[in-house]
This record gives sequence, structure tokens and C-alpha cells, in this order.
Amino acid sequence: MERIVMKFGGTSVANPERIARAAKLVQDEVSRGNQVAVIVSAMGKTTDDLLKLAVEVNPKAGRRELDMLLATGEQVTASLLAMAIAAQGLEARSYTGWQAGVTTESVHGNARIEQVHADKVVSTLESGAVAVITGFQGADSSGELTTLGRGGSDTSAVAIAIAIDAAICDIYTDVEGVFTTDPRLIGQAKKLEEISYDEMLEIANLGAGVLHPRAVEFAKNHQMPLRVRPAHMEGEGTIIKEEIDLENNLIVRGIAFERDIIRITVMYDVPYNGSLANIFTALADHHVNVDIIVQTIMEGVQPSVSFSIKKEDFAEAINVLETEKEALGYNRADFEVGLAKVSIVGSGMVSNPGVAAQMFEILRSASVPVKMVSTSEIKVSVVIPESDMEIAVAALHKQFGLDND
Amino acid sequence: MERIVMKFGGTSVANPERIARAAKLVQDEVSRGNQVAVIVSAMGKTTDDLLKLAVEVNPKAGRRELDMLLATGEQVTASLLAMAIAAQGLEARSYTGWQAGVTTESVHGNARIEQVHADKVVSTLESGAVAVITGFQGADSSGELTTLGRGGSDTSAVAIAIAIDAAICDIYTDVEGVFTTDPRLIGQAKKLEEISYDEMLEIANLGAGVLHPRAVEFAKNHQMPLRVRPAHMEGEGTIIKEEIDLENNLIVRGIAFERDIIRITVMYDVPYNGSLANIFTALADHHVNVDIIVQTIMEGVQPSVSFSIKKEDFAEAINVLETEKEALGYNRADFEVGLAKVSIVGSGMVSNPGVAAQMFEILRSASVPVKMVSTSEIKVSVVIPESDMEIAVAALHKQFGLDND
Repeated sequence: MERIVMKFGGTSVANPERIARAAKLVQDEVSRGNQVAVIVSAMGKTTDDLLKLAVEVNPKAGRRELDMLLATGEQVTASLLAMAIAAQGLEARSYTGWQAGVTTESVHGNARIEQVHADKVVSTLESGAVAVITGFQGADSSGELTTLGRGGSDTSAVAIAIAIDAAICDIYTDVEGVFTTDPRLIGQAKKLEEISYDEMLEIANLGAGVLHPRAVEFAKNHQMPLRVRPAHMEGEGTIIKEEIDLENNLIVRGIAFERDIIRITVMYDVPYNGSLANIFTALADHHVNVDIIVQTIMEGVQPSVSFSIKKEDFAEAINVLETEKEALGYNRADFEVGLAKVSIVGSGMVSNPGVAAQMFEILRSASVPVKMVSTSEIKVSVVIPESDMEIAVAALHKQFGLDND
Repeated sequence: MERIVMKFGGTSVANPERIARAAKLVQDEVSRGNQVAVIVSAMGKTTDDLLKLAVEVNPKAGRRELDMLLATGEQVTASLLAMAIAAQGLEARSYTGWQAGVTTESVHGNARIEQVHADKVVSTLESGAVAVITGFQGADSSGELTTLGRGGSDTSAVAIAIAIDAAICDIYTDVEGVFTTDPRLIGQAKKLEEISYDEMLEIANLGAGVLHPRAVEFAKNHQMPLRVRPAHMEGEGTIIKEEIDLENNLIVRGIAFERDIIRITVMYDVPYNGSLANIFTALADHHVNVDIIVQTIMEGVQPSVSFSIKKEDFAEAINVLETEKEALGYNRADFEVGLAKVSIVGSGMVSNPGVAAQMFEILRSASVPVKMVSTSEIKVSVVIPESDMEIAVAALHKQFGLDND
């Protein structure tokens, strides 16, 4: 007997048929003799529909009331899934976040979980029933409803798995697992059996979208094994844990990519006496997310700083640069659109210093120009023309030995 | 400054426009210097839609999970209305039943309110904000969500009005107030300025549908004045309280009616040695609501008992009579369909013993045959052919002096 957490995202519970399918998966786990706690998101587009209603009523609705509104989404799913599990002949009880003891800080819209008092859930499991718990939400210590923000249901699942001392936290999604790269782009992409927390964190931060980085970090901090599994088909998915067997001794484990990247370059007069921090403080104040930063301050060369941003932040970035030009003290700025970011990720890279050089060589052979570079212990990212992105990913995938046999 | 409760039913908050209209009515009360607590039902057909989903997932869903599901309906309305009130420039905070301190017995689907710990609501009001509270729901002492059953939101409104010591509990509906009879049937029907709790109770029990009897009884027990008011138009509505001014010394204050009544007559062999209780116990066990009961046990006449039921209970009643025939020991049963019940109601009837006779005389003059009679201190009901119902109501309305001038 093991205690297991199963988390179903919005698409996995989007309609009564899918809820029934999820209930069947729960029954399978129970019939293996396991105690099961289930965490659910709101059904499909429910959250969007509720937000639309809110905008109709008050386009500037406060976060507290939005939390009250949105919290209903998961409650609907949780009760329906409990009913569907009961229809399979099992006992099931649904709980809201606050009923399940999920206590958060007193922040609306983006609260962090502080504690989980899981007594009620544990006694439900020990009585032989399935507990179905609303993800994405909790309550603060004064009983105000709070939501956790993006990826919140994954975080709920991990927090509850830790609180009830589960053997594993299974995240059911609409994908088969974690792949070496996006199989929609590269047909040769391969599903990984295992991946380390750190690798998953890099991949999640690079926008792979399977799991929220906050949830991965939470799991890593408590060494809670995660598993990304398909909800609509058979399959063992991908296990995420601390120590993994390096499959075929692969140094690079995955390739992530992101389209619609823009590079902005700001040039300063000689001599340069400003502070780099100023420009990034100004951008951060306006919620512009800056990714890669490259600065050039060399004798005899015009000082400059380049940084990459996402397309959706472009207008705001330009706005900041224009309105703050005098304060920032730069000479001129230009930008390059139509770029993409490609990253190679792998824990083994720490002990293999030649991997970045190998990456540049592969790109050079494929005639892909590199505009910017950024490295971490287990990742190398390059910014390249978006028109070369598919060629670059395919070449890296093949040359680093990731192609499917 | 007065403290006021405003309750909006489902049709009064069915869409964003109506929610905005309700918010405007709240603002009007606040601008008169009043502290306002608002109680809301689920929007329009939300409850039906949720139940439809439940049936798809599990046609035999348990009451606990149905309560979890249905409780979301009012929470959506409460948060949206709080947003709409904020859009009017006021401060507003929505609360679920449990957050507002509504504690019920541990029963799902039809719980009774045990206590209201209104500290949170009162401190919200005293801070100058509007409190918007979900009707129809609460939580038991262990934090399980419960719903109050039919008419629950009216009951919530009254309970909260009592707990916060409100001056009045205004029930906003889609009608102008309480009428002498249904104006859709009788054009001469007149809106009443005031009506007593007891009269309202009789009218509510007779299916007038404006207010749930449980809410009226609750208000009467605590002498909380109620007012039924129109949500979509101007109008003072009807006040419901203990002592009322008899307008024009009218003895009969209102005429209620109900279609689709069926009379069942059960005949026994002579000599009769059974117990009347048996048949009604059997019917009650199968949730058949019996209204008027008339028994005939006279020397030399075949003993019989007649009772009236609603059409929707007919199949089940016949089923009970057939399967229990032997146990009940009756000889034969017949039934008459196509009947209606018409009732006259008025507190003044207690001291006017001739009212029933006057009613029969009016019906006789209108050639309406009376099939069954039932009287209480402030009500006389008759069962008549449904085809005569409109004539009967019109004649009674005119002859008892209720017609509009």
C-alpha cells in the first residue's frame, strides 16, 4: 500500500467524459491497493469564462473578489470528480483548499502556501475513501480565500503530497511525458523515462509548459518524486527526481526553444560612466521581463548592452527606453526582431566544459548565426534567427544523440 | 442610519446587467446613510446547469457532493455583485455562508441554520463596506458545506438580518409585491401595502412562491420585518410584519390558487376496522405530499377517505396504493383529476365565523361545485373543478371587496 497524489489539469477534466476517464484512473490506483488523494484544476475554459463575467461587471475588479470568483472553478471540478469516483463504486469526498487545510500567506491572486494541515485528508484516506481537493487555492489564517497564481494547481498537488507523505505525486496532463524536445516540431523527439529536478526546472523555466517551475522547486526542496503522465492514454510518463540514471550517458538531455524573441541594444557615449543597473531597474519597474543580457565595455569600443525580451514586452520596453532616455543617459538604441532562443539542458554538462563549444560547432556547421549566448551549470542558451530555429533544433537534437532510434 | 438586509433572488442577478442594477439599488440604500448586507442566490439557471452536469457524471450523486457543487453558484454571484458594487465607487466584500458565520445542522441538501456568528459581517458593515453574502448555504460545526434546500436564500437573509439586528429584511424579486391574488390571472388584483406574518405564511404555503414559508416563519419568530420589493422597477413592495392596519377593514386579504390537483378516494368494507394513519404513513414514506383530507365514517355509509395531492405525486401515490393494498385493507380506490384548489386568506377571519359560509354562497352563485373543504383559523380552502377556477377566483376577489378601484 502506498499513498499517492494524482493531479488532473483543466484539459483532463474539461467535460463529463474526461471526468469519468479521470475517475477510472483513480479507480485503477485504488484497485492496486493505494490510498489516493486527487488534486484538480478548473474544467477547461472555466477560469476564462469567469474572468470574462468579472470584466463585464467591473473591468477593474479587485484581486480579493477575483479570488472568491475563481475559487469556484476548482470546487465544481472537485465535487463532480468525487461524484464520478462514487459512480465507480468507491467512496470519495471533495474538499476545498481551506477544508483540506491549505493555509497561504494573506495575498490575493498569487499567494504562497505556508502550511498544509492535512489531518482531514489523511483521515479520509485512512477511512478508505478518496479525497478530491481543489488545486490552485487555499485560505489565509483569517479564513480569506486566496489563489496561488499560475501553475498553482501543480504547486497544490506537491504541497499536499508532501503533507500527507505520499510516495509520489502524479501530474496527469494532455502530453505523454517530458520529451527531449517538442515532438510537434521535431518528429525524432523522444520521451524521457526520467529527468532530474534541476533539468526539469530549466526546461520549465524555458517555457515547456508541462509543469510550473514553482512546483518543481517545491518538490525538489522536499525530495518529492513527481511523474508527468498522460491522462487520455496509457503510458508511464516521465519521473522527475533528484538522482537519475543517465540514459546512454547522454550529456544533453533536452532541447528547449522559444519563438518571438527580440534583442534590444543600447549604446552609450564614450566615456561610459552610467550604471547598467539603472536600465534594468527601470524595465523591471514596468514589469518587462529581461532574459539574456550581454554587455560590452572594452577599451576603444563604444560601450553597449544588449538584452533579449519576449515580443509581448516589446512595446513597454520601448516606452521605458524613450521616456527614461535622459535619466538612463544612453546615446542610441536599436532592436532586432524575428529571433528565437534555443537551449540545451543536461545535468551532465556541469562536468563537461566542452558542451557549449560543441553546440556552437553544430550551429556553425548548420550555418546558423549566434546572436547572443547565456550559460548556466546545466544549460546553454543561444539567440538565433527564428527562421533558423527548426534547423538548429533538429541539428542539435541529432548531434547530441537524442534522436529516436 | 439603519442596518438593512437586501436579498436578491436568481432572476434579479441572472446576468451582468441585472447584477449592475442590483448594485445600483445597494448604492441607493448606502447613499441614504444605511449599512447594507446583501444576500444573493445563484444566477438565473446556474443551479439547474450544475445539476445537469452532476447527472451526467453520476445520476445518483450523494447529497454531500451536490452541496459542494451547488454552493459554488451563490459564490459566483456574491463575488460578481461585490465587484459591481465596487464599480459604483463603494467598498464591498463578498463572503461565503461559512465565512459569514452561518452554522447549520450536519445535514446535506436541506439543513437548518443553527446559529449565525456575524462578527465578520458586522465589522465589515461598521468599517463602511457592504457585505455580500451567499444565500442558501452554510457549514456545519466541522466545516462541511451544507445547503438549506428550497427557499434557502430567503431563510439565509432572515437569519442574517436577525443576527446583525437589521431594521428590515428586503427581499427583491421579479414581482411588485404581494398581491390580493395572482395578477396574471385576475387583472383586478391589487398589491397589498402590508400583510401579517400569518397571512403571508398561509399564502406562501399555498404556493404563491414569492417567499418561502420557512423564511416567513423564521421572521415571525424573531419579529423581523420583511419587505417584498421589485428588483427591476420602482416600487415600495409589500411589508410583512406582526400587526397590520386592516385596509378598508377587509376580512379576506388574499386569494390563492393551485392547479393540477387530484383527489383520491379510498373506500373500505363495512365494518371499518382499519386505521386511517396507515395509508398516510405509507404515502409519507414514499414522499407523497397529501394536502386536504376528508373522511367519512358514518353509520350505514361505506367508510371512505378522500385526499388531495398534486399531479406530480400521482404516479407514486397510485403505486403505493397498489403495492400496499393488502396491508392497507381497503376495498377499492378511485380518483378524480382536473381539479384546483382555491383558498381565501385573512387574519380577520378568526373573529368572523361566517366567512366560510359566505365563500360557499359566492361559489354557489357562480355555479361552482365544491368537492372538498379545509379550514384553518385564517384560511378556507376548497377543491373545485379546474375549469371553474378562474370564475371562482374572480367572483371571490370581487365579492370579498378586493378588486382594484
